[in-house]
Amino acid sequence: MSVLLTNIGELVTNDPEHGAGSGSGGLGVVPDAAIVVEAGRIAWTGPASSAPAADTAVDLGGRCALPGFVDSHSHTVFAGDRAAEFAARMTGEPYTGGGIANTVTATRAASDEALRARGQALVREMLAQGTTTVEIKSGYGQDVATEARTLRIARELTPETTFLGAHTVPAEYAGDRAGYVDLVTGPMLAACAPHARWIDVFCEPAAPTAFDEDEARTVLAAGARAGLGVRVHGNQLSAGPGVRLAVEVGAASVDHCTHLSDADVDALAGSWAGAGLGTVATLLPAVEFSTRSPYPDARRLLAAGVPVALATDCNPGSGYSSSMPFVVALAVREMRMSPAEALWSATAGGAAALRRDDVGHLRVGARADLTVLDAPSHTYLAYRPGVPLVAQVWKDGARV
Amino acid sequence: MSVLLTNIGELVTNDPEHGAGSGSGGLGVVPDAAIVVEAGRIAWTGPASSAPAADTAVDLGGRCALPGFVDSHSHTVFAGDRAAEFAARMTGEPYTGGGIANTVTATRAASDEALRARGQALVREMLAQGTTTVEIKSGYGQDVATEARTLRIARELTPETTFLGAHTVPAEYAGDRAGYVDLVTGPMLAACAPHARWIDVFCEPAAPTAFDEDEARTVLAAGARAGLGVRVHGNQLSAGPGVRLAVEVGAASVDHCTHLSDADVDALAGSWAGAGLGTVATLLPAVEFSTRSPYPDARRLLAAGVPVALATDCNPGSGYSSSMPFVVALAVREMRMSPAEALWSATAGGAAALRRDDVGHLRVGARADLTVLDAPSHTYLAYRPGVPLVAQVWKDGARV
Ligand SMILES: [Zn+2]
Ligand SMILES: [Zn+2]
Repeated sequence: MSVLLTNIGELVTNDPEHGAGSGSGGLGVVPDAAIVVEAGRIAWTGPASSAPAADTAVDLGGRCALPGFVDSHSHTVFAGDRAAEFAARMTGEPYTGGGIANTVTATRAASDEALRARGQALVREMLAQGTTTVEIKSGYGQDVATEARTLRIARELTPETTFLGAHTVPAEYAGDRAGYVDLVTGPMLAACAPHARWIDVFCEPAAPTAFDEDEARTVLAAGARAGLGVRVHGNQLSAGPGVRLAVEVGAASVDHCTHLSDADVDALAGSWAGAGLGTVATLLPAVEFSTRSPYPDARRLLAAGVPVALATDCNPGSGYSSSMPFVVALAVREMRMSPAEALWSATAGGAAALRRDDVGHLRVGARADLTVLDAPSHTYLAYRPGVPLVAQVWKDGARV
Repeated sequence: MSVLLTNIGELVTNDPEHGAGSGSGGLGVVPDAAIVVEAGRIAWTGPASSAPAADTAVDLGGRCALPGFVDSHSHTVFAGDRAAEFAARMTGEPYTGGGIANTVTATRAASDEALRARGQALVREMLAQGTTTVEIKSGYGQDVATEARTLRIARELTPETTFLGAHTVPAEYAGDRAGYVDLVTGPMLAACAPHARWIDVFCEPAAPTAFDEDEARTVLAAGARAGLGVRVHGNQLSAGPGVRLAVEVGAASVDHCTHLSDADVDALAGSWAGAGLGTVATLLPAVEFSTRSPYPDARRLLAAGVPVALATDCNPGSGYSSSMPFVVALAVREMRMSPAEALWSATAGGAAALRRDDVGHLRVGARADLTVLDAPSHTYLAYRPGVPLVAQVWKDGARV
């Protein structure tokens, strides 16, 4: 059965054939548009006036329709919260409550049902805000059993699951970092790989509980041998080795990129010079918002031709927003991305960071994952910050 | 008929008798609380374990309940949009499209039905985000007929209507400012006063189309003679005379306060030293967000003991957010207000700026205007920026 979505005031396709511009700014906008959906996929897009017939029709009332957001970085299966830590950080009061170790303790103690309920609630919340594809990482278990069950539960929620046993070194391994790397690359990886598509590591020599370059390389190599794709948390707190390593190992994405050297930017750009796919720079400005940190320099990356993704990093510690519209608004306000660049990065950019070509755009053959805004154009995502503008969400051709 | 709202995980009453702290930080928090509502008013609040019987009961599932937000500054009856102007400003591209004159032209040309539909949609959107009291200004008509019908329509939406004929000097009076002040204080005021509770003026000698101190004083004096309460747009672009004038004339509020001299802060604090009510400083950080401007110094005002309100300034030009949760998150991130101070300012502060004692708190006798969050505490408004956390809204004792 085919469905015609018509009276779309502005349709963003991310299809360069449909519209002005190229690269990150090429949204492939079609005014007064229509879409035909069949078998969960896009079968046709174009001007409403030349739309083909379909079995049923839905009038979108002149609203704007976009590819569903692709949130390529989240940590949404965990227990507990850290609201008190957040409040202390914002008001400059001392806080000695434990940080991420709090979340690890709560997550280890939580039942499967509690973890599943939290994950489901957050994914549902994301979907209501227009996110139709989400990546979820482990990393709050930091023992074999909890990492594995985190990923098993995450896999119920999304195919884009990432094993992040190397999130931090847990307290019980503080005196034996090598032992923890052995655990992560040995029994933990073996237990987690069946539930994961990706491996990730928090590479940040500046943070005592994160991983240095050699440790990170060891973790990523083990993951790759186990058949996992590679991604990296890098350059969040300093211009460390994360980006360099990500490019070296052919990571799909290096995430944060808050502090970059010229060599880092060159390496990222160079990764796209060959025939294969390079490394996307994924920026997570909601973390800078919630930690009151300086924002990454998106313009520098865009000027160098590096594909940029935007994601939430939704997590209970450094930034608990699940809102891609908020991230888009921050990218425009704080990182001087244009509304078009920010939207491309929140859709096609996220898809590139996950090496997916079936989402993040609305070309013929794409999954029919759409977000419909109560607004006439995509600019409203930044023009109306904080306002819940998502009127409808369609996933695999059905309204959810 | 009485209704018991029970299983409230955290109840914010703004009642100093209920909780630690005083002044702006005194939220009067009751954990594990209940409320009894009768005839649209709060009849009882306290611990759920000692709640009296009621005719019906509603279980809020451990959620947090707050006084409904009081948005004491908005411009939500207008036509047209300025998304292109916004995008040009954000990307640093030249823009010569007309600014506020665009909105004036579109508003004058719009039918009553179109203005009403836009105003209703925005007020509905605000209500869904927890705003149960909203002030609406005119100021996009700038002729007698359009100002009067704007206020007539605004009055259908809220009792808190403000005559802002002196928003800017319209193009046709560019060579005759005195003539426009005569119009505003004469026939326009006469036509508008029946639909308005307040008069306002954009006092900003730094802006060529705004009003200087003498013009502003003339406008406010005429409004006061017509029985209107006084409020002022002041000190948005420079440390001009707005705050000083607002205190001089006993304004309920001076709004923006982005640039303040020491004398301005002293004057605001001094206005509260006597027996009567002083002038509230209303901060509008969503405007600074959407114009990429420096934020007001809230801590300086709080340190001086000045009551601070937070509002959206929702308007199509300088900031089109209708979201009080977004404003609270900005106040915490950008102005270093604590989550408690920000919430107080977004509820009790807004009520003080409108000189209302029936809203902005949940003491016995208050209107039963409540916002219920899908969150265990009010801290989540800042901890989860951009996320639509409002689960339920109650207005005058009924769920909307
Ligand atoms: Zn992360
Ligand atoms: Zn205003």
